Amino acid sequence: MIRMQALRPVPHTRVTLTDAFWAPRIEVNRTATLPHVRQQLEATGRLAALDLAWRIGMPNKPHHFWDSDIAKWLEAASLSLAAHPDPALEADLDMIIERYANLQHPSGYLNSYFLGIDPSRRWANLRDAHELYCVGHLIEAAVAHHAATGKRTFLEVMCRAADHVCAEFGWGRDQRRGYPGHEEIELALVKLAAATGERRYFEQARYFIDARGQQPHYYEIEARLRGDDPRAYWAKTYEYVQAHVPLREQTTVVGHAVRAMYLYAGATDVAAATGDTGLLAVLEGLWKQLVDTRLFVTGGIGTSGDNEGFTRDYDLPDEDAYAETCAAIGLVFWAQRMLATTGQGQYADMLERALYNGVLSGVGLDGTRFFYENPLASGGQHAREAWYSCACCPPNIARLLAGLPGLFLGSSDDSVWMHLYAQGRASVPVAAGVLSLSTQSCYPWDGAVGVTVEAAPGAPLALRLRIPGWCVRWRVRVNGAPLESAVLENGYLVLRRVWRAGDRIDLQLGMPVRFTYPHPRIRALAGRVAVERGPLVYCLEGVDQRERDLELLALDTSAGPAAFKPHHDHHLLGGVTLLRGPARRLGAAGGLYRSRPLSGDVTDATLIPYAVWANRARTEMRVWGRST
Amino acid sequence: MIRMQALRPVPHTRVTLTDAFWAPRIEVNRTATLPHVRQQLEATGRLAALDLAWRIGMPNKPHHFWDSDIAKWLEAASLSLAAHPDPALEADLDMIIERYANLQHPSGYLNSYFLGIDPSRRWANLRDAHELYCVGHLIEAAVAHHAATGKRTFLEVMCRAADHVCAEFGWGRDQRRGYPGHEEIELALVKLAAATGERRYFEQARYFIDARGQQPHYYEIEARLRGDDPRAYWAKTYEYVQAHVPLREQTTVVGHAVRAMYLYAGATDVAAATGDTGLLAVLEGLWKQLVDTRLFVTGGIGTSGDNEGFTRDYDLPDEDAYAETCAAIGLVFWAQRMLATTGQGQYADMLERALYNGVLSGVGLDGTRFFYENPLASGGQHAREAWYSCACCPPNIARLLAGLPGLFLGSSDDSVWMHLYAQGRASVPVAAGVLSLSTQSCYPWDGAVGVTVEAAPGAPLALRLRIPGWCVRWRVRVNGAPLESAVLENGYLVLRRVWRAGDRIDLQLGMPVRFTYPHPRIRALAGRVAVERGPLVYCLEGVDQRERDLELLALDTSAGPAAFKPHHDHHLLGGVTLLRGPARRLGAAGGLYRSRPLSGDVTDATLIPYAVWANRARTEMRVWGRST
Repeated sequence: MIRMQALRPVPHTRVTLTDAFWAPRIEVNRTATLPHVRQQLEATGRLAALDLAWRIGMPNKPHHFWDSDIAKWLEAASLSLAAHPDPALEADLDMIIERYANLQHPSGYLNSYFLGIDPSRRWANLRDAHELYCVGHLIEAAVAHHAATGKRTFLEVMCRAADHVCAEFGWGRDQRRGYPGHEEIELALVKLAAATGERRYFEQARYFIDARGQQPHYYEIEARLRGDDPRAYWAKTYEYVQAHVPLREQTTVVGHAVRAMYLYAGATDVAAATGDTGLLAVLEGLWKQLVDTRLFVTGGIGTSGDNEGFTRDYDLPDEDAYAETCAAIGLVFWAQRMLATTGQGQYADMLERALYNGVLSGVGLDGTRFFYENPLASGGQHAREAWYSCACCPPNIARLLAGLPGLFLGSSDDSVWMHLYAQGRASVPVAAGVLSLSTQSCYPWDGAVGVTVEAAPGAPLALRLRIPGWCVRWRVRVNGAPLESAVLENGYLVLRRVWRAGDRIDLQLGMPVRFTYPHPRIRALAGRVAVERGPLVYCLEGVDQRERDLELLALDTSAGPAAFKPHHDHHLLGGVTLLRGPARRLGAAGGLYRSRPLSGDVTDATLIPYAVWANRARTEMRVWGRST
Repeated sequence: MIRMQALRPVPHTRVTLTDAFWAPRIEVNRTATLPHVRQQLEATGRLAALDLAWRIGMPNKPHHFWDSDIAKWLEAASLSLAAHPDPALEADLDMIIERYANLQHPSGYLNSYFLGIDPSRRWANLRDAHELYCVGHLIEAAVAHHAATGKRTFLEVMCRAADHVCAEFGWGRDQRRGYPGHEEIELALVKLAAATGERRYFEQARYFIDARGQQPHYYEIEARLRGDDPRAYWAKTYEYVQAHVPLREQTTVVGHAVRAMYLYAGATDVAAATGDTGLLAVLEGLWKQLVDTRLFVTGGIGTSGDNEGFTRDYDLPDEDAYAETCAAIGLVFWAQRMLATTGQGQYADMLERALYNGVLSGVGLDGTRFFYENPLASGGQHAREAWYSCACCPPNIARLLAGLPGLFLGSSDDSVWMHLYAQGRASVPVAAGVLSLSTQSCYPWDGAVGVTVEAAPGAPLALRLRIPGWCVRWRVRVNGAPLESAVLENGYLVLRRVWRAGDRIDLQLGMPVRFTYPHPRIRALAGRVAVERGPLVYCLEGVDQRERDLELLALDTSAGPAAFKPHHDHHLLGGVTLLRGPARRLGAAGGLYRSRPLSGDVTDATLIPYAVWANRARTEMRVWGRST
């Protein structure tokens, strides 16, 4: 394989966060979310389904995507275990893995639903039945478990499952031309190839990318084999599963948003590993189309609940936004891979935007209440829930948070890349040895980041510090001296030298409050303004305002964003920096239609980070406020 | 009966419009719409259904509300005939009436669907089956036909049908407690009582008003008699048919908008005729709730297509507005009755608003293309259609236009009321004789109205000239002398004297361009502004603009509404006064989210009356423009 990737990931086990923003979230994830999800897997019958014990008439009829919920928990638990030893958790994992080993069919086939409930329909409906998706998640879990524990049981189970998939589906004369209706296995197979060194898994990922949407159309073939009319497809269009045309002919992000992100992430892996610049150009085009026309300001994606996905350009309402948590997580995965492949800061910008806003809003501060949808406004009808019958989001955010430190840094032969900032420490392997760093920062509440070199190889090495796209003014000092002529490459400040222990970099990212205005073609947001600071999108919650009816509260933008003052409250919402600024309470008296523009009494407004909304009383919320 | 009504209607046959706005519409209605609807009634099998000739396997299966489409055409044709003799039309009416006479069951029962297709289900499902609604429309048609021709055949058919209804439904021990799922027969029975002098028809209307929504609930009783589960009601709530509680307990306009309007109109008739101030107070409360929270600026009503009706307070979007033509017509009918009952100008204001905007938009200038929905914005997806499978709107607007001059004036013992203004002439019976008037005006293009007394009784008489709610500055001269101390009563200027032939009144209604701003609780309209002049709501059509993408066109309101200049174009759209004013072309380049407020290059915008939109190329439209 040709390695196009500019950057290698730095495993989460080599990065420790000790900050006030993420470290508590990771700890809550470990101590509250993981047990909570584990308990839900048990209580809802998902684990029992592994023993094929369900019979007609019993409660909790298994579903064909249940394995993915278990798999994401297994992956989350393995990632946590790697960073935080826990013998009880390790034993629990072994027990569940043992059940999977027992469940597996001699052929390698693995899916608790089709093995237990509906054996005659194995691989009969790739379009809808999620078998390859479940195998993909189990592969990811097995790779994480192997990395965490060194144990091979799970990895070998999933190699057998993957071998079965490789045998069933491919270009060969005796193989079917199938590919998953819910993409995910592509990126999982790339991980499995890396973990095992077996190129065939990578080739299978490439096959799935290339076979998708080809004619004659596999989903029509398999529908006819089932005796179904292909035209009776419930989703009406193969755009729903990004299989309307081959990926290389796609120019618009369409359909189910999570599926789209996982497909693009896997395809980016394939393009990077094969040096396929044509495929990479397709992905860059899709990326641009997404961020230019179909992205919520929170990094959420997917407007409609009907297809859990994309609709039309500029169809980006606030209250009616779907913006599934898993879709924002998928965007993080895709952005991570585009960043690794190209080394361009725009992808880190998007990764950061999604992570700090549209992803993090998906889990409550207590770690046991979740959002599936992440609207950008609420009349008070939205509340977090402990679980969902379609429970993809809770274990997905659990695995993301368990492995979160792995997103912060990257390495290339002669460089260490700092993508995200938080207080902590890291040791990063480079060609010449290992660079050990510690960081001192209150990011994202403050833009000051201190980096201390703890140990360094004796060779010249570039430290590449990301200057976020939102940051207009910044300065940097190295060992106290201002750096006047630092090079900014693709959004990264390049500091190249022979680093020595004790070297100190002080980066100051200007983090003024910003007003953000929507594109005029976003009809639903005409006349509205959002408030951001650093990587955080802010929102109004009714509970914080004198005027709780948020439609009557207009932000007074006349004095500029500087009139909105940051104020750190250590006690509120786990410790957050609020913004307080001028506003108007609009007059509600009078008729529907008036001869004068809206006016109102002077008042003020308090904004909190969108990521922590809906952690108190049920109340109204707005990301996009009215503006005077 | 106690007559509470302050005003008697002046029949349309006593008022002739010779203006450039309405007279051509009435003529097109007579010469194009009536033949067009007649042809559609034939082509779609509606008339053939009267002969009970349909058999399984034939096209055009009859529907249980088809009689209402025929009835509205019969009424429209009769109203036209009364003002414009037409022997061929009269003969055609006689022929169709003959078919109805032959169709009628010996019991008096009359409905072409249940007589022909489904005889066993007569009166089995008042909630859904529209039988009383159809009888109501046929009664209205028969009353109009009798008034137009003096012939009694149709009236007698419908008296027999009404007698059958009176016998079937009522408070008596042997009667059912039923009432219509689609209201309409209430107001029709009041008309029938007036036309025949038979009080029992009025009492039956009163019964339907009073029985509605009582417990035990009739729709539950009849559902169980059919063997249906009442809880399986497809509309889910009896609010859909305004039968969730008795009308006297209702405080919110709910459900299907046309049904609501017809119910309230009939109830206003009943309240007026019986001096029922309690019922009138309920209706006044519903009116206030409608205009304060659930009314489109066009006089359209009913937000959602799901229930063809009302949703929540302030849920008044533009592009997604349903605003069915029939609902605006229904609002005209209700407003007409509230006006007649109370003599308060606010009801004439609403009648005018609905008529000149949300009703008139429902028919194209050629009279053969219609709107069922009347959205307040369009991306170009809306186009008029020649007919609808549910074809309530085309014949409804036909009958409204055929009788339109009857809305202009009212009389009471000592007063003649001028509600609406247009060039024309009228002779109005009052206690002391007949007052004949002619009017000279270009209304609504200009606010000058001249009134010349052509003949007058010798007794003192008040001319009451409406000063529209939108009019801030006005002046009046009588025989050339300014009137300094004229009395304004309930929105009407009262000019009382002994009028003599040749007396001349000159009313000047100031008609500056106005900006209209939405209530802050209307989420969808934040940051938007509408433009009005006189009774007309204006709109932007893409076809008139340099910048055809209307989302990128912002009205520049900074110089005030006076910067929008009226310009009469005799050739455009049948002759309309356009408005032209300053605007900005917003920059579409750049990303979805921007750090600067929208700005744009100077341009101008052209606005046309909403009533005449969608008469040229298919194009974007906005009533609510962006404002700078």
